Amino acid sequence: MNKLTVKAKNSQDVMQPLKASVTPLEEKLMELFSASEKSFLAEEAMEERISALVEDFLYAKTASTDIDLELIIQEFTENKIPALPADVGNYIDDLAQTLVAHSIHTSSPRYIGHMTSALPYFVRPIAKLLIAMNQNLVKMETAKVLTPCERQTLAMMHRLIYDFSEDFYNQHIQKNDSTLGIVVTGGTLANITALWCARNASLGPKNNFSGIEKEGLYAALEFYGYKGMVIIGSSLMHYSFEKAAGLLGIGDRNLLKVPTDSHHRMDLAALRQTVAECRDRNLHILAIIGVAGSTDSGSIDPLPEIAAIAQSANAHFHVDAAWGGPVLFSERHRHKLAGIQLADSVTIDGHKQMYLPMGIGMVLFRNPQIAKVIEKNAPYTVRKDSIDLGKRSLEGSRSGASLFLQAALNIIGHQGYEFLIDAGIHKTQHLANLIRENPAFELLLEPEINLLLYRYIPETFREKAAKKQLTEADNYFINEFNERLQEAQRQAGDTFVSRTTVQNTCYGKTIPIVAFRVVLANPLTTEADISFVLNDQLKIAAKLSLTIANSDRCDEVNYAVY
Amino acid sequence: MNKLTVKAKNSQDVMQPLKASVTPLEEKLMELFSASEKSFLAEEAMEERISALVEDFLYAKTASTDIDLELIIQEFTENKIPALPADVGNYIDDLAQTLVAHSIHTSSPRYIGHMTSALPYFVRPIAKLLIAMNQNLVKMETAKVLTPCERQTLAMMHRLIYDFSEDFYNQHIQKNDSTLGIVVTGGTLANITALWCARNASLGPKNNFSGIEKEGLYAALEFYGYKGMVIIGSSLMHYSFEKAAGLLGIGDRNLLKVPTDSHHRMDLAALRQTVAECRDRNLHILAIIGVAGSTDSGSIDPLPEIAAIAQSANAHFHVDAAWGGPVLFSERHRHKLAGIQLADSVTIDGHKQMYLPMGIGMVLFRNPQIAKVIEKNAPYTVRKDSIDLGKRSLEGSRSGASLFLQAALNIIGHQGYEFLIDAGIHKTQHLANLIRENPAFELLLEPEINLLLYRYIPETFREKAAKKQLTEADNYFINEFNERLQEAQRQAGDTFVSRTTVQNTCYGKTIPIVAFRVVLANPLTTEADISFVLNDQLKIAAKLSLTIANSDRCDEVNYAVY
Repeated sequence: MNKLTVKAKNSQDVMQPLKASVTPLEEKLMELFSASEKSFLAEEAMEERISALVEDFLYAKTASTDIDLELIIQEFTENKIPALPADVGNYIDDLAQTLVAHSIHTSSPRYIGHMTSALPYFVRPIAKLLIAMNQNLVKMETAKVLTPCERQTLAMMHRLIYDFSEDFYNQHIQKNDSTLGIVVTGGTLANITALWCARNASLGPKNNFSGIEKEGLYAALEFYGYKGMVIIGSSLMHYSFEKAAGLLGIGDRNLLKVPTDSHHRMDLAALRQTVAECRDRNLHILAIIGVAGSTDSGSIDPLPEIAAIAQSANAHFHVDAAWGGPVLFSERHRHKLAGIQLADSVTIDGHKQMYLPMGIGMVLFRNPQIAKVIEKNAPYTVRKDSIDLGKRSLEGSRSGASLFLQAALNIIGHQGYEFLIDAGIHKTQHLANLIRENPAFELLLEPEINLLLYRYIPETFREKAAKKQLTEADNYFINEFNERLQEAQRQAGDTFVSRTTVQNTCYGKTIPIVAFRVVLANPLTTEADISFVLNDQLKIAAKLSLTIANSDRCDEVNYAVY
Repeated sequence: MNKLTVKAKNSQDVMQPLKASVTPLEEKLMELFSASEKSFLAEEAMEERISALVEDFLYAKTASTDIDLELIIQEFTENKIPALPADVGNYIDDLAQTLVAHSIHTSSPRYIGHMTSALPYFVRPIAKLLIAMNQNLVKMETAKVLTPCERQTLAMMHRLIYDFSEDFYNQHIQKNDSTLGIVVTGGTLANITALWCARNASLGPKNNFSGIEKEGLYAALEFYGYKGMVIIGSSLMHYSFEKAAGLLGIGDRNLLKVPTDSHHRMDLAALRQTVAECRDRNLHILAIIGVAGSTDSGSIDPLPEIAAIAQSANAHFHVDAAWGGPVLFSERHRHKLAGIQLADSVTIDGHKQMYLPMGIGMVLFRNPQIAKVIEKNAPYTVRKDSIDLGKRSLEGSRSGASLFLQAALNIIGHQGYEFLIDAGIHKTQHLANLIRENPAFELLLEPEINLLLYRYIPETFREKAAKKQLTEADNYFINEFNERLQEAQRQAGDTFVSRTTVQNTCYGKTIPIVAFRVVLANPLTTEADISFVLNDQLKIAAKLSLTIANSDRCDEVNYAVY
């Protein structure tokens, strides 16, 4: 073997002159990359500065600064990659001033307008570990331990929903052949993955036909003899289902939207009728969607009834519980999700009520075999006999972000999550009470969980509002007022609620109502913070009323928006 | 206004008893979430422990431990979410032992088998900042600064490829209406996004037809009068294109794979013939793919010629430069990508040769208007007139990961990247020379950039191999030997190369050849490390030869695998 040995001497010869002629650029780069004392010290210095920025950021109680978006945009117009490496210190100075200073305080207790929250501190050190290990979950060769670890985490989430027998989990948890769930970056990819599976499973190989995934949608409809293909859900489905319908070749207009009742729940009679019509027209019903925590209002569809209808229509039943899923942790509130265990697939987001950083979602499957219909292989990776998770997933290379979830399930625990869920719903009831008691506000919907829709009623309309006698014209004026109020509040930045347009309130289905949308998930939001937000709105509304009173109403209020 | 003011006193009343009866669980949770001195101290303690783990991990020169996968798997069989929160210290102990200790050292200079590398240290503090700010790029309201910042970063990458005029960038960089690119989590989503755009753009609204995205694929083919739809690329296309074809309703089998020449470049005559056949059969050619750095061997398709063919076929020209794109930084090597600027869309991965953590990719568009064909809106977010990036993207909520790229473009700079690219290609040539000089190895393909395919030749075959006289049976034996060698090397864990099966070598197209696949991107990999890896293989091969000699060859070597 001696004569074959590759001589290290030889290669050191080659390296000597290289070392002698190290350029400043090379030296700088080696400091950036090397695992050396010098590099760790540089990293430590950077870390210290970043930690100070982080601490300031997390202490903030305001929603944001009041800087104009236009001013920010002007800072980002250079379009050429810098030729030379920047000094790290200077870079951080710049970052602090342009970016950190004006970023949105998504964890502020008074930023209650979107599905964000303060996060538990352990996600930050875990992030450092993850980035340092930089595993790639596409294959075992780059994720030897995280592969089984992610499978375990998914099994735990699966059990939270389906609660199958111990035997079931022992059999499937680490079985290469089984897929209890897939980790993705968010609810959108989870919903798309679920429907991709549903489409392929329902129009799979048969006789001489090798299935829709191989032969395409046109051939599948021809072979199965359908006139078309539809997905059915409520009008409050997340817009990711439109992406799914478009992407999968089904077409947005074949995403059929069943109306909701005044509680924002899918109208079952309408669903039954839609199903019957599809059958009459010989349309393949790919899937029926149940929403468990709508993005708009937190409403939850009648899942057991939808499950039964889906079963009798032989359609895949998918539940989008991206937001509402973790309500299952609560002994007191989990009944609201009754029927979720009947779903063929369920979407849950990690970065919503699992309190994880942005970019973690998952889909769970009732049938551990269904994901085989999306399996792909390649010669250099995800080989057929491997345990590689990349075989069955929409994404290819992906990070080990599921470790955040694994950490949270351990460090927060079932009871910790239960506490968080209960607290959020409790606070929402508190806010609902404050709104009910205050004639300046109107509650637009009884909150189901921890989302709440309400609006401001300008003084002149309060009497009519109390009697539910507002006319269409009144409502248009109030809409405009609320839109401007929300924008002014956002611009000022002391507090934040978001805004939506609701189609189905006590004012009927034809009058769109602009609503404030509040999400109460942040454990740091106190009842005092909630009062602070409402008072901030009252203050801004008073100013706004004055502005409008002093101006020509017709000029100021532009009805054309609607 | 006084009578309307929401009384803080009232809410404090409600809070008092809550505070008095704080449970240990609640106290624990508040420590996890709160921005307080106590929490920051707890975080600091955790950080210190994680930093020590990280430092050890990054110093490692081995590829992995030699622990059996089965043993690891046994650690991950519990399937119930823990009821009570774990102690953070205990959790880290456990993490260190089960997970960190046996994770793959993807940044080791001797782990040269996959597209991983040591990363610059600044990605870790930036990760902390990102996780703390937890912006959501789906909308401006959760990413006020990162929205224009991401647009700027994409413009810089766009310019690297297309190098349009200063005017062009000034016009489009921050224009709501324009989309120079989309940040995704990796090349797979980038490729899918590009083809989604291509599909929708080529079968868009016309006369009474409202386009494929709305009406679906079946209706689109009927309306446009095509018999079917295809995507054409080389046989070395990434497997994500199969996902794209399946997902988009086109069908895997309508992803037409043109053979490659002996340099692994698309055979142009075969491409022309395929295009002609598709026209004859009245098939819509959705897109033609050029590969710029194939996953298998780093080969680069003849892009200018493919561009011309695509143009005359009126097909979208997409270049998958997930791996090879950053070669554009190199004055010396960028000519290898000539023609990429003719592409309608280009995929580049951040987590590959941009040296960023796992989970960052992007697609860039020649036409800033094309992404409008995938635009979606919703009442509570991504409204039509907003600057929200979520309007035109496959994903919904997503992290501000593009900040890693922004940081790297600044801190590494154009010249820094140039140095890294040149160094990798230089090392690859060095390895190729070592292999050429050593009869125990056979170079299977001249490396184009920094991927290299070779194999081990057992002693008895060396003479025949040198004369290129190996028979099919010889090659089968050698294949089996190399497969076992790679597995033994992986299992031992001192070094790592990956493995693929190549269809087109000097042994002809019919004999699949098992190859070692080496990727030389890690700046820390020295020529001494390269020699170390080869010597490790020689040592393992010697042992393996002995084992085989001592056993019944027919028993040991299972030809059935092929």
